[in-house]
Amino acid sequence: MEMEAILAEVAAAVEPHRGAGKVASYIPALAEVDPRKFGIAIVDGQGRYHCAGDCDESFSIQSISKVFTFALALERVGPVLWKRVGREPSGSPFNSIVQLERENGIPRNPLINPGAMVVTDQLIGDRGADAFVEELLALLREEAEDDSVFIDDRVAQSESETGARNRSLAWFMKAFGRLDNDVETVLSAYFRHCALAMSCRQLARAALFLAFDGRDPVTGRRVVASRRCRRVNAMMMLCGHYDNSGEFAFRIGLPGKSGVGGGILAIAPGKGSIAVWSPGLNAAGTSQVGAMALEKLVERTGWSAFV
Amino acid sequence: MEMEAILAEVAAAVEPHRGAGKVASYIPALAEVDPRKFGIAIVDGQGRYHCAGDCDESFSIQSISKVFTFALALERVGPVLWKRVGREPSGSPFNSIVQLERENGIPRNPLINPGAMVVTDQLIGDRGADAFVEELLALLREEAEDDSVFIDDRVAQSESETGARNRSLAWFMKAFGRLDNDVETVLSAYFRHCALAMSCRQLARAALFLAFDGRDPVTGRRVVASRRCRRVNAMMMLCGHYDNSGEFAFRIGLPGKSGVGGGILAIAPGKGSIAVWSPGLNAAGTSQVGAMALEKLVERTGWSAFV
Amino acid sequence: MEMEAILAEVAAAVEPHRGAGKVASYIPALAEVDPRKFGIAIVDGQGRYHCAGDCDESFSIQSISKVFTFALALERVGPVLWKRVGREPSGSPFNSIVQLERENGIPRNPLINPGAMVVTDQLIGDRGADAFVEELLALLREEAEDDSVFIDDRVAQSESETGARNRSLAWFMKAFGRLDNDVETVLSAYFRHCALAMSCRQLARAALFLAFDGRDPVTGRRVVASRRCRRVNAMMMLCGHYDNSGEFAFRIGLPGKSGVGGGILAIAPGKGSIAVWSPGLNAAGTSQVGAMALEKLVERTGWSAFV
Amino acid sequence: MEMEAILAEVAAAVEPHRGAGKVASYIPALAEVDPRKFGIAIVDGQGRYHCAGDCDESFSIQSISKVFTFALALERVGPVLWKRVGREPSGSPFNSIVQLERENGIPRNPLINPGAMVVTDQLIGDRGADAFVEELLALLREEAEDDSVFIDDRVAQSESETGARNRSLAWFMKAFGRLDNDVETVLSAYFRHCALAMSCRQLARAALFLAFDGRDPVTGRRVVASRRCRRVNAMMMLCGHYDNSGEFAFRIGLPGKSGVGGGILAIAPGKGSIAVWSPGLNAAGTSQVGAMALEKLVERTGWSAFV
Repeated sequence: MEMEAILAEVAAAVEPHRGAGKVASYIPALAEVDPRKFGIAIVDGQGRYHCAGDCDESFSIQSISKVFTFALALERVGPVLWKRVGREPSGSPFNSIVQLERENGIPRNPLINPGAMVVTDQLIGDRGADAFVEELLALLREEAEDDSVFIDDRVAQSESETGARNRSLAWFMKAFGRLDNDVETVLSAYFRHCALAMSCRQLARAALFLAFDGRDPVTGRRVVASRRCRRVNAMMMLCGHYDNSGEFAFRIGLPGKSGVGGGILAIAPGKGSIAVWSPGLNAAGTSQVGAMALEKLVERTGWSAFV
Repeated sequence: MEMEAILAEVAAAVEPHRGAGKVASYIPALAEVDPRKFGIAIVDGQGRYHCAGDCDESFSIQSISKVFTFALALERVGPVLWKRVGREPSGSPFNSIVQLERENGIPRNPLINPGAMVVTDQLIGDRGADAFVEELLALLREEAEDDSVFIDDRVAQSESETGARNRSLAWFMKAFGRLDNDVETVLSAYFRHCALAMSCRQLARAALFLAFDGRDPVTGRRVVASRRCRRVNAMMMLCGHYDNSGEFAFRIGLPGKSGVGGGILAIAPGKGSIAVWSPGLNAAGTSQVGAMALEKLVERTGWSAFV
Repeated sequence: MEMEAILAEVAAAVEPHRGAGKVASYIPALAEVDPRKFGIAIVDGQGRYHCAGDCDESFSIQSISKVFTFALALERVGPVLWKRVGREPSGSPFNSIVQLERENGIPRNPLINPGAMVVTDQLIGDRGADAFVEELLALLREEAEDDSVFIDDRVAQSESETGARNRSLAWFMKAFGRLDNDVETVLSAYFRHCALAMSCRQLARAALFLAFDGRDPVTGRRVVASRRCRRVNAMMMLCGHYDNSGEFAFRIGLPGKSGVGGGILAIAPGKGSIAVWSPGLNAAGTSQVGAMALEKLVERTGWSAFV
Repeated sequence: MEMEAILAEVAAAVEPHRGAGKVASYIPALAEVDPRKFGIAIVDGQGRYHCAGDCDESFSIQSISKVFTFALALERVGPVLWKRVGREPSGSPFNSIVQLERENGIPRNPLINPGAMVVTDQLIGDRGADAFVEELLALLREEAEDDSVFIDDRVAQSESETGARNRSLAWFMKAFGRLDNDVETVLSAYFRHCALAMSCRQLARAALFLAFDGRDPVTGRRVVASRRCRRVNAMMMLCGHYDNSGEFAFRIGLPGKSGVGGGILAIAPGKGSIAVWSPGLNAAGTSQVGAMALEKLVERTGWSAFV
């Protein structure tokens, strides 16, 4: 089958580069991961899986979770979300606070850290952090068709312990009245959704609805409205990799989101969803071998949004 | 025919809004344009034109010209261009100088003013501003299949006379050694390519190659390599509307570029190229009625890059 | 006596303006103060007091406390302090975080909020916040020759409850490893020293050593080395009023420090120390009537550093 | 005589350091100066000169000229000057453009480059650059009591040829409508007053009025009003050395102004004026050996504003 041949090519192309990049080291749970790991999974509109490498091994999806919380919040509250968070690229690193000071505590977009905190705060509402986390986990398990998706409490705990910068961002927004819930409540939920552990197979499957206009093409379940699905993809294209988003659009040309755990989610509208994982990161915090794999895949499949 | 029906719908939808927005007033030639003007033209892969409104009236394409100079420079010198200009969204207005100071005089991308100046400087090379301007004009006439494309010298002259901010940007880059040619040489070419006068029909036709992987689908002429065409489209998607790019990607979901003359160019890869014109601008300098027309068009045709 | 006549003139000059400006309202304890209050006290080298108005009423000295903690820290650890905090004007408001991001978490000077937190952290060392607060209180009581100087716990509590911005600043520095102690330990001490309650009489007396080269001219006790005293005065002159320091140097021409409680401390080297208090603040957070009184005083006494 | 002894000590103290620092190299006329040069001159209230070293050799006073143009403009137009330029430290290097963008083209103070350009523009008025330059030269010759003060046209010419950054600053302000005269007219005058050539003896004498409340104590001529003299001194204290002003206030504690030609002017109110010259600069562009000499001098004379 053609896709298997392509995946074999992709795997062969990245083979000599496995282990390249720098594994995130700010918490032990990430630092300990074998840098030579590499997995990829593609799910198409018929729900067929195409996988290679360590595609069944769980990794910390980290910031990729922001895509799901953003989609959920947009579906839940609609355009009112844009009163609390912008939708423009920030032109800054993921954790920059400069833009927040210049713009009265309103984050530039939902895919940078402070923006994702605002989204989390919105989703927590008045029901508490736990209820939100459970709902998110239930959604991901359902969409992944796999109940083994879990939150790695050890990772969440470590994130919290080393989370001074994120704590500063949250308090800064609090000072501008931009968070309804307590800072620690928001952070507790934020650190937990960043600590979601999923395999490439699970991640690609869970995000499949984003490639099919907001509707899971296998189960027929509508996760988000068509219009909102486009917007989630647009945000990923413009802001999915912080100050490396232009580079990603250049090389891969698909909406995507990277996480410091080494995962990248990419969406090929109408074609399928792709999850790739390799722990070594480039200077901007995107998986180096993962991006290489996606570039090769897109080159062979022609799945760019720009041709 | 279907597209004609869609265009009729688009025209009807914007009709009550004609005249909305604020016409650029910093030079007489722009300020004097009738704010109620509205034109749209689509050219498809068979070279068929679908037009409505004032689609044959020339307007000042202004910053839309940056797309052509960027494509030309990338094709001419390849990746070496990226030593002189970045490829990330700036998160700032089109004429911001702050980013230049922070980043040693290297502009964030080729579609903001200083970036386009660097591109222009590259294209001038050692042959002088006139030779470059003539080459650009010849290319546009050829791709537009219309020799009446021209440079409005009155506009170019006015731009130069009121161009203090652009002059400051150019001198700033000069101070960092980022321009090879004299500041006034670069500006002379820059102001002239921004003063290109084209109709929607001409503009859509001239940019058709961008919708077909760099190759004019009518004449078969390759204008830029496939890979480079994608990159031009990627840049338009991420940076085509300055600090309004996220909003545009959200609402329209296509690579595009706006100009303060009220024109917008949008590319639907594999489908066709679209030029729309209406002089009233929104706060970010994008044609208000033009964006509205594109949003309606995309809604009816389903031409988003994100579904 | 001449000084009494001058003070009468000063009081008469500000009389029509009493109540002008805007009383700090972010915590109840400050908001409730009568805006028409006005007090002034001068202590000279013979320890003589010259007072007028509400000079014996306690007010919250707020940021004026930063002068004492800075002097104490400089005397304690010497130039090593400059590894942790700069000594240049910031050109920014007192609570700006932009500069911290640009300069790796090192505050510009010891008289802006983050700088004072670093100083506090230094003084806490490994003995805990309480021991530091007690030492500071003891010093102020001794130098004020008045054991009724106290810390207003209600104010400290309110500061902590509304201290989101300060908490953000502290966590930001923590993220850069700039604080040795826990954030909440540092803030607990910081909020308490800002909640010091003193009268003009007490404040002027306690700071008298700064006007006499670091040595209390009455008791003969050396509080800080001569060289260090000059440096404290230099910092007050350049950075004592945040982004209003130039204005203050212009109008008053003496080293000074203002607090949002409406107090201002000014030092006339070789002449005496001056404390003035009036709760209404100007846009930059300096007592409006207090600055007016100092301007008049300096005009009549000729106590400018610049003539 | 005591002062001679002190100067001998100063000269001895700096002797081993002569040649330290980095001579400005952006124009030949500065780069060619012998780095071991060192001169110092003090003029007191009786008009007595105390000199050492190369005190009679002319050097390029560069930015020190900003003190004279500022004083002249303030005396000429009074507080209306503050509509065009601020009076706060910028917290930025001398040629930063970031602050200009944030603050609508209004420079922070008259002693940074853009601020001095605004001052120059004010003084040019509608009489042309030459008339202004002649007036300034006449004033300096009169106050220096020496007609050999001159403008080094070769330096002015070089400044203009390498002045891309200054040109950018001027055009930026022009874009905000902050300059009345043509950019090149302003720059022509600006580059010429920066190219003033004076010896330490001449410079100290010419600035003597600043140490005596605006009135030349020898001739009795009032140059600026008392109130304005204080303000010039205040500005020098707060902003005279760009982002090294805090350091200078710390070590020397007197109002001062440095130039990249290696000169420093310092004012000891009521005592005298001091000019020192040594070409090697520290990282912030202040004469390294010059600052060292002033520090020693102040230590021995006790002429700090802060004791």
